[in-house]
Amino acid sequence: MKSVVIHAAKDLRIEDRAAEAVGPGQVEIAIQAGGVCGSDLHYYNHGGFGAIRLREPMILGHEIAGTISALGSRVSGLSVGDRVAVSPSRPCNACEYCLRGLQNHCTHMRFYGSAMPVPHIQGGFRQLLVADGWQCHKVADGVSINEAAFAEPFAVTLHAVKRAGALIGKRVLVTGCGPIGTLAILAARAHGAQEIVATDVIDSVLEKARVVGAERTINVAERPQDLSAYSTGKGSFDVMFEASGNERALRAGIETLRPRGILMQLGLGGDVSVPLNMIVSKEIDMRGSFRFHEEFALAVDLINRRVVNVMPLLTDIFPLEQAVLAFETAGDRTRAMKVQLSFA
Amino acid sequence: MKSVVIHAAKDLRIEDRAAEAVGPGQVEIAIQAGGVCGSDLHYYNHGGFGAIRLREPMILGHEIAGTISALGSRVSGLSVGDRVAVSPSRPCNACEYCLRGLQNHCTHMRFYGSAMPVPHIQGGFRQLLVADGWQCHKVADGVSINEAAFAEPFAVTLHAVKRAGALIGKRVLVTGCGPIGTLAILAARAHGAQEIVATDVIDSVLEKARVVGAERTINVAERPQDLSAYSTGKGSFDVMFEASGNERALRAGIETLRPRGILMQLGLGGDVSVPLNMIVSKEIDMRGSFRFHEEFALAVDLINRRVVNVMPLLTDIFPLEQAVLAFETAGDRTRAMKVQLSFA
Amino acid sequence: MKSVVIHAAKDLRIEDRAAEAVGPGQVEIAIQAGGVCGSDLHYYNHGGFGAIRLREPMILGHEIAGTISALGSRVSGLSVGDRVAVSPSRPCNACEYCLRGLQNHCTHMRFYGSAMPVPHIQGGFRQLLVADGWQCHKVADGVSINEAAFAEPFAVTLHAVKRAGALIGKRVLVTGCGPIGTLAILAARAHGAQEIVATDVIDSVLEKARVVGAERTINVAERPQDLSAYSTGKGSFDVMFEASGNERALRAGIETLRPRGILMQLGLGGDVSVPLNMIVSKEIDMRGSFRFHEEFALAVDLINRRVVNVMPLLTDIFPLEQAVLAFETAGDRTRAMKVQLSFA
Amino acid sequence: MKSVVIHAAKDLRIEDRAAEAVGPGQVEIAIQAGGVCGSDLHYYNHGGFGAIRLREPMILGHEIAGTISALGSRVSGLSVGDRVAVSPSRPCNACEYCLRGLQNHCTHMRFYGSAMPVPHIQGGFRQLLVADGWQCHKVADGVSINEAAFAEPFAVTLHAVKRAGALIGKRVLVTGCGPIGTLAILAARAHGAQEIVATDVIDSVLEKARVVGAERTINVAERPQDLSAYSTGKGSFDVMFEASGNERALRAGIETLRPRGILMQLGLGGDVSVPLNMIVSKEIDMRGSFRFHEEFALAVDLINRRVVNVMPLLTDIFPLEQAVLAFETAGDRTRAMKVQLSFA
Repeated sequence: MKSVVIHAAKDLRIEDRAAEAVGPGQVEIAIQAGGVCGSDLHYYNHGGFGAIRLREPMILGHEIAGTISALGSRVSGLSVGDRVAVSPSRPCNACEYCLRGLQNHCTHMRFYGSAMPVPHIQGGFRQLLVADGWQCHKVADGVSINEAAFAEPFAVTLHAVKRAGALIGKRVLVTGCGPIGTLAILAARAHGAQEIVATDVIDSVLEKARVVGAERTINVAERPQDLSAYSTGKGSFDVMFEASGNERALRAGIETLRPRGILMQLGLGGDVSVPLNMIVSKEIDMRGSFRFHEEFALAVDLINRRVVNVMPLLTDIFPLEQAVLAFETAGDRTRAMKVQLSFA
Repeated sequence: MKSVVIHAAKDLRIEDRAAEAVGPGQVEIAIQAGGVCGSDLHYYNHGGFGAIRLREPMILGHEIAGTISALGSRVSGLSVGDRVAVSPSRPCNACEYCLRGLQNHCTHMRFYGSAMPVPHIQGGFRQLLVADGWQCHKVADGVSINEAAFAEPFAVTLHAVKRAGALIGKRVLVTGCGPIGTLAILAARAHGAQEIVATDVIDSVLEKARVVGAERTINVAERPQDLSAYSTGKGSFDVMFEASGNERALRAGIETLRPRGILMQLGLGGDVSVPLNMIVSKEIDMRGSFRFHEEFALAVDLINRRVVNVMPLLTDIFPLEQAVLAFETAGDRTRAMKVQLSFA
Repeated sequence: MKSVVIHAAKDLRIEDRAAEAVGPGQVEIAIQAGGVCGSDLHYYNHGGFGAIRLREPMILGHEIAGTISALGSRVSGLSVGDRVAVSPSRPCNACEYCLRGLQNHCTHMRFYGSAMPVPHIQGGFRQLLVADGWQCHKVADGVSINEAAFAEPFAVTLHAVKRAGALIGKRVLVTGCGPIGTLAILAARAHGAQEIVATDVIDSVLEKARVVGAERTINVAERPQDLSAYSTGKGSFDVMFEASGNERALRAGIETLRPRGILMQLGLGGDVSVPLNMIVSKEIDMRGSFRFHEEFALAVDLINRRVVNVMPLLTDIFPLEQAVLAFETAGDRTRAMKVQLSFA
Repeated sequence: MKSVVIHAAKDLRIEDRAAEAVGPGQVEIAIQAGGVCGSDLHYYNHGGFGAIRLREPMILGHEIAGTISALGSRVSGLSVGDRVAVSPSRPCNACEYCLRGLQNHCTHMRFYGSAMPVPHIQGGFRQLLVADGWQCHKVADGVSINEAAFAEPFAVTLHAVKRAGALIGKRVLVTGCGPIGTLAILAARAHGAQEIVATDVIDSVLEKARVVGAERTINVAERPQDLSAYSTGKGSFDVMFEASGNERALRAGIETLRPRGILMQLGLGGDVSVPLNMIVSKEIDMRGSFRFHEEFALAVDLINRRVVNVMPLLTDIFPLEQAVLAFETAGDRTRAMKVQLSFA
């Protein structure tokens, strides 16, 4: 079974690993599509991020979908041949956070392709994956396996939308139009945002933002004044989804928020400087949003029912063997939005 | 009528001004007590803060109480001789924010002693003040006029408590134990906080924090490890009231918050650096809190009914003539907590 | 100027009234479309409802749209010839509820066509109406005046959706598929409801419910078991919009709600019997929803932008002269959904 | 081991049962105090309530406290001799509701002394009880075991307070001043209610309400007009805790609620008639509140720290042998508030 293994920064290898046994309640999935995520790129480019560093080889990948190839005992509702999106989020369901319904904060989370715990949690970029039955969500007829592999990042943005509260009648700003920002546009649009303005510094990604539902896009490298016009008076936007992790984007966005505006922070980053006086005087509400839990099922459902169309965001599919090229491509925002691997 | 007028940084003068006429719906109040606030100190020490600068002489002061000395026409419920706390918050009640119940964000706010608009809004450190009847809240028998003058800063902290949501069963951290921090302890204690830990860098203010209800205080200059012990696991506190405006206090506090913890930001400050990864991964909810509206009446009521006792926070009363000494004293956290002026 | 005046139950007359003068800030509107509402029908059929009784002749109507025919002084943003939807909600913007942002609870509300105050508030079923400029919301090109006249009842349902909180990932039940129930389906669908099941006792209205977005409809007169199947376990629905005012519908719906389910009550009615033990043991949250405020602008915007299509709900248009026939038709749920009058 | 066993309505027996073995993680508790609850009385007087009927003999009781008499293996933090309040709530921590943090809606709840499941869940009115270590909450020195036995009903009211949202600045009505109503007064008072008015039809219980913190009490049998005075205008109260389950109390209370008022329903009852028009037009929010979960620990903590004093509510302690007399007394509201059994 071939898998995509990161050993260190810029040291990505295709390796053969032994297939795992299928236990009770488990299934074996022939993975067919795997999306390259920002955290995968951090491992590839920098060997980790922040305090999280690679300490041993690790199979990457957590945006995955495929076809069930074998069933363990006591699996109900799934059959060999079923096409499924696989949730990489595996909370313990027993810790204090799980028992409060905060599974995304599970103290024993085993999220695929994560170097946070040691030993690392091996990921899903592999030809055969053994997973628990409950991780598998069936893909509807007519929906491609590539669309299904968007369920994970889409769930991340649905979680942020959920944490933002009702969007009915709300004016929304999205800063940073990579995969998360553009999926946030889809998620906000599907949940009632009245108006969506999106910003980035690259025209091609802004074009994607328009395709998936932004009423207006602003290239803030070229026309920052178009954004700052929204700062007039006490500001214009009710909700902001910050998906860049960029300090300037964050600060420019805060200026455009109305009093009591909600800033959903999705983009990761290091230390950023924020204007405390403005946060206080406008009573800004800045909320982090991290991963997802029940939103994975919702993501698959919305994709299955064609409520959203993620396909415009898929820019490249590379075969497993060209994983390095896939990662290099995915890291170039001017050329790629979402890059997937195929594992056939 | 003597008043305390700021002309520029360190240029504070006692000046005679003509008393104002009492119009319909208005009352004249013989001011008796006026607390020196952090923003008063900013005008005194720096001639303003941030983009807000003195552009003309301005009477300072907005924490005021006194006795009604004259009544205009059409004032009901008030009599000459009534002792009252006077709300300095004068929203227009007609702008879009007022009509949403967000009077503290009024676009035409005329808050006493504020250099934000030009001409500036003259303040309440004066012997005679003409105010609207609705600004006046009666002080109960047996409650001193000095306690009444705490209504304004106490209302600021009640507003923050209100914005924090229910405190039932919550563990609370207060960072910065000046007047706002200590009043926040009183406010949180009166509204059900289960446990309150307070931090500062000065032992004398921490002593005040204990007196008004903190279970535990930590001098983070001397024993930072006592605070960081609360960062174990995913953190310990449910709610944090940040009343210092200090970057280190803010950052140290975030470390101790639990996932989904709420950080109420009361302390003003310039640009501060925050750890974006932690805000995201713990889904911290950082909320600004600015001034107050209906909480002024609540503050007076809680003081009147002896639900809270603010007296331990009053460290000095200076006569009007010693205003400069009062301001110098108020600026020295090692010697003073709340300093008030008397106007007799 | 012809108008539709109710004198008593079943005594509806077309009368000539003098046109009103256009004052400053006001416009005159040539009304073109007016929808017959349930409250209009109550006045027509019963002379009122509950404690609210007709005490003098009153022009009916509050779902109105037309073309501006004259402008008073100091009106900005509107021109003669503009087609507009007219909000019938006229709060005082000065009472305690208005100043909390609860304009729908204004103590001096002057809602068109309401017999609550005496003298009654005359309504909008008339050829010429003088209204304030702010009541008028422009209708987009290509949107018919009949669609615009849906803004008012649609706003009622948007208000209920707003009060229900975020619908992301929620399973929704709508009981009663008259105009309000079906518009609630449109409103919930546009704001992210994951699944909508609708019930009624008439097949033709259920057909309308499916057309506007219900995944499934149940004729509870014929197949009550189809609904009660959702009561299995602890229930199935997260949110219920009760639009019938019918005790049986309410009770059957409560049975199908999950613990912590939200029951938005839109349908008016007299005394109804509710199962207290079930409300307590499932911690049901039953919330009334009354009229609207800022949702009127949102309703027009969603209709203008074709986010929703209300046209399938319009079943009849009668000329003013046939108002009695229009009211009789509107009162027959087997034949009519929304009936409008034309005033040309 | 003697226990209090209900066989049928009015058939309460003291029976000898074999002591249970203490398993891993468990402790044996010598029960010392057991409060008689309304549901115990329903079993005693009627053999059940609603659809829940006794189908086999059942030990009653779930308000219990005692001293640990034996420890099983793997119990940490507890010792023989520790005095503890014992939570009767035993959720499975594995069902869909537990994994959402809604343990009070656990589908496999094993709550002491409940005839809901068959076989029934045996209760805690017995000399020796084997419980899991996590059910036991230590009682502070100086706090009597009788106070500790109030933890359970107090937790019920803390849960209702939590569900009501922040009480800061709120005017509160409590209808029904039995043990739950009076404990709700304590709970609301401790969490910031600004003003509490309480109603009942018996003077002696109203006296208790005043003792534990109601500003005002109204005997609505004698002076209903004193309550209806609060209905003036659009009403007076922000939050109502309905603890009687009585239709008249519920309806009279709704009349006094302000628009958007919250009605927390604690009292169980059968079908009650509610005024739908008023719920809709005032946008009343009626919320059931059922049992508790994490509030048990909070209840013990508040009792331990003397934040609340429950002792005024304890009116009688009967020895185990006089259980029938205890139940008869507890059922007479004119004579008793909370009745406890002792098991020495």
